[in-house]
Amino acid sequence: MPSLRRTALDQYAERVRPEYERALRDLVEIPTVSSHPTHRADMRRGAEAAASLVRAAGGQARVLRTAGHPLVVGDFPAPRGTPTVVLYNHLDVQPAEREAEGWRTEPFRFVRRGDRYFGRGTTDDKGPALAALFGVRAAREAGVPVGVRLLWEMEEEIGSPSLEPQLRRLATREPPHSVVVSDAAWLDRRRPTSIAGLRGFIGFRLVLDTAEGEAHSGDVGGAARNPIAELMQLVAELHDARTGRVKVPGFYDDVVPLTRRERDDFRRSGFSLATYKRDNHLRLLRATDPALVLERIWARPTFEVHGVVGGYTGPGIKATVPGHAEAKVSCRLVPRQRPERIARLITAFVRKRNPDVVVHAEGASLPYEGSSQGPVADAVRGAMSFAFGRTPAFVRDGGTIGAVVSMGRILRCPIGFLNLSLPEHGYHAPNENFDWGQAAGGMAAFARYLEEVAQPRGAKGSRP
Amino acid sequence: MPSLRRTALDQYAERVRPEYERALRDLVEIPTVSSHPTHRADMRRGAEAAASLVRAAGGQARVLRTAGHPLVVGDFPAPRGTPTVVLYNHLDVQPAEREAEGWRTEPFRFVRRGDRYFGRGTTDDKGPALAALFGVRAAREAGVPVGVRLLWEMEEEIGSPSLEPQLRRLATREPPHSVVVSDAAWLDRRRPTSIAGLRGFIGFRLVLDTAEGEAHSGDVGGAARNPIAELMQLVAELHDARTGRVKVPGFYDDVVPLTRRERDDFRRSGFSLATYKRDNHLRLLRATDPALVLERIWARPTFEVHGVVGGYTGPGIKATVPGHAEAKVSCRLVPRQRPERIARLITAFVRKRNPDVVVHAEGASLPYEGSSQGPVADAVRGAMSFAFGRTPAFVRDGGTIGAVVSMGRILRCPIGFLNLSLPEHGYHAPNENFDWGQAAGGMAAFARYLEEVAQPRGAKGSRP
Repeated sequence: MPSLRRTALDQYAERVRPEYERALRDLVEIPTVSSHPTHRADMRRGAEAAASLVRAAGGQARVLRTAGHPLVVGDFPAPRGTPTVVLYNHLDVQPAEREAEGWRTEPFRFVRRGDRYFGRGTTDDKGPALAALFGVRAAREAGVPVGVRLLWEMEEEIGSPSLEPQLRRLATREPPHSVVVSDAAWLDRRRPTSIAGLRGFIGFRLVLDTAEGEAHSGDVGGAARNPIAELMQLVAELHDARTGRVKVPGFYDDVVPLTRRERDDFRRSGFSLATYKRDNHLRLLRATDPALVLERIWARPTFEVHGVVGGYTGPGIKATVPGHAEAKVSCRLVPRQRPERIARLITAFVRKRNPDVVVHAEGASLPYEGSSQGPVADAVRGAMSFAFGRTPAFVRDGGTIGAVVSMGRILRCPIGFLNLSLPEHGYHAPNENFDWGQAAGGMAAFARYLEEVAQPRGAKGSRP
Repeated sequence: MPSLRRTALDQYAERVRPEYERALRDLVEIPTVSSHPTHRADMRRGAEAAASLVRAAGGQARVLRTAGHPLVVGDFPAPRGTPTVVLYNHLDVQPAEREAEGWRTEPFRFVRRGDRYFGRGTTDDKGPALAALFGVRAAREAGVPVGVRLLWEMEEEIGSPSLEPQLRRLATREPPHSVVVSDAAWLDRRRPTSIAGLRGFIGFRLVLDTAEGEAHSGDVGGAARNPIAELMQLVAELHDARTGRVKVPGFYDDVVPLTRRERDDFRRSGFSLATYKRDNHLRLLRATDPALVLERIWARPTFEVHGVVGGYTGPGIKATVPGHAEAKVSCRLVPRQRPERIARLITAFVRKRNPDVVVHAEGASLPYEGSSQGPVADAVRGAMSFAFGRTPAFVRDGGTIGAVVSMGRILRCPIGFLNLSLPEHGYHAPNENFDWGQAAGGMAAFARYLEEVAQPRGAKGSRP
């Protein structure tokens, strides 16, 4: 089997670049916002467009119906006796509102500025998905003997509610070699990272109705209950906003302290507090020691408020008491914390503090506990070193990929992470973007990962 | 001097009804929203339209420029040796958003349904202002010997910032007999009320910036400060949302307990808790005893949250940490509480609890301490009994009319209140409306008030 060369892959990338950009434009300009029911038709269109791209790359593609949004499956069958690798990405995106969020371009227009691609979903996760597809094509064209199954989900941003039944249907008698996930960002553009742990997630909408509509605060102020104020008080009872500490009894019971080795890994990750603040546009933090910041975002659970609905939000003041309010909140969870237990604790706490508040659960995802050791981690290390010229650091990620835990369990194989996004790409933020350097590097990394699987290091060493 | 008769006034009202409705349409369809800078031209247009209506009724009208929005002054000069009465109304209105607030008709379209008139400003305060104008015309046509000055303000909803300098310019050597204010609602459509006390107001925007924009809570959650959560905690520290009790030290220092007589007056006011809840669309209250509810809305200060800006407010959850948040809050104040002292206490408290929060004051109005005794109260009692067939109850009002305190002090005369709005008119609420019964009754009440002033009860008794 011929070994892939970096120069050949660079030439391949330059050759397919116009195709890659056209494909990314096609996907970005379909607003596949999974959390909005109004986008149901877009989800379908997005899936069909993705399937066409798989077919154009020489694969077989299916769009599977689910109870929710569809799942795209792309197959490049394995030559007899060779393993199959599953490559997971997702094609659904976060909502985006140009005015409210301050986008400089239309969120659902693909805008190229030099080597940079702007638009919702460019980096999360349509750009990386297409880097995987073009990497697979490179490996197939070079004759790398391995099968590939692409799993392109469309419910990642809403906690993957339909994925598990689909995975059970797709599970094969012979488990795949591995699942490779590409849906996370490096800490710094100079240091590739892979992932040995993810946080889980559980969201809630806390809803309180006290009146049929708003009323004049001169008429009712003092007698009427104020639903926004009561939700504010409830949230303040649930956690200390200044320190972040959750005040619900039992919340921290299952949190495992970091080992010395994990702390050392974190320290070697290339994390820079200044860069982190700049890339995330942060001015004020709850901690300033870098090690503490990393522990907070990777290894500690959170309670977060995302927004409040209800009341007046125009200029100045409007002296009314609203009749309805909703607080959108969530917790990030760390390995060993179970979402259903946390949901039980929080719901019981809310019921006790303010029985009129209705708790609506909004998505739940288990945290993921991975490793930096073993053959899959070795293949990831080889592929990223090859593609980006530096050994990746195995860190954690504070985000959540609901699908990861399900895939490991149901497909019965280990998980590897080929992260391609950069902090400056603006994950879930306005002016989200991806860039050609990461796309081309991603193609090389995926191609090489497949080769590492087809011809493990031990095997290579035994060649004549 | 001929005494006004009820039947003649009823005939007058029926005769002018088409004119009244045309005039109300003219005013309602100009969106005189004083709190929005974009409505500056509408304010001017509204003032000019009002001045034309005064002229059409036989008065002289001026539109006075101020540092803010204009003031309309309409004069019906006094015959030599007779007193002048100042009639105060306002022509600016609360903001209104059809979709967000659930209006059944366009807020700035005048819609007549039978005897009911819908549109923002119909009851607060354009409808009552025009009832006053047509009442003046009735009195003039009947030869009642009294002068009238109409003061139509356009900054009432924003705390009357420009009124005081104008009042100083308009103050006459000989003080007017009285100022009559018509800008409040009865408790029940069957019992007219007048007012012996008003709450003051002080508004604040509490603003916290922690980042240049929103960030993904997977990336920053735990390390980033959350400005909405911190404002929630701050508001919970400022007051207890369940009881309404303000926790700022010194806040209640100047609150005077109700006298037994005041409590008795409140009890005789015709207040019905069921009606109150229904008319204000309230489901849940902080108190259920009617006397306690009245004390809370008329005689106790408040802390209220009107809305929260910042973060995500669409469907579902969006897992981002906002970089900016603003809480719109206010206090209603009771007689003897001074807004500037309360502002100082709250600002100092906020600075101590969360020094990064910026406090923006938004309007301040003194509370008003009035009386149910004296010649002006007697004339009000006579006018309302005449027009509505029942002696009015002297109650308080939980709302704020910033101009009232200024007028009493600067024009050096007592204040009377001829309330015309009803609870079901939806003050400051969606589907605001006024009705012909209150408009026609209002014309009669104003005409009779002028007659009561021209020919006091004592004088009448001495006629041959």
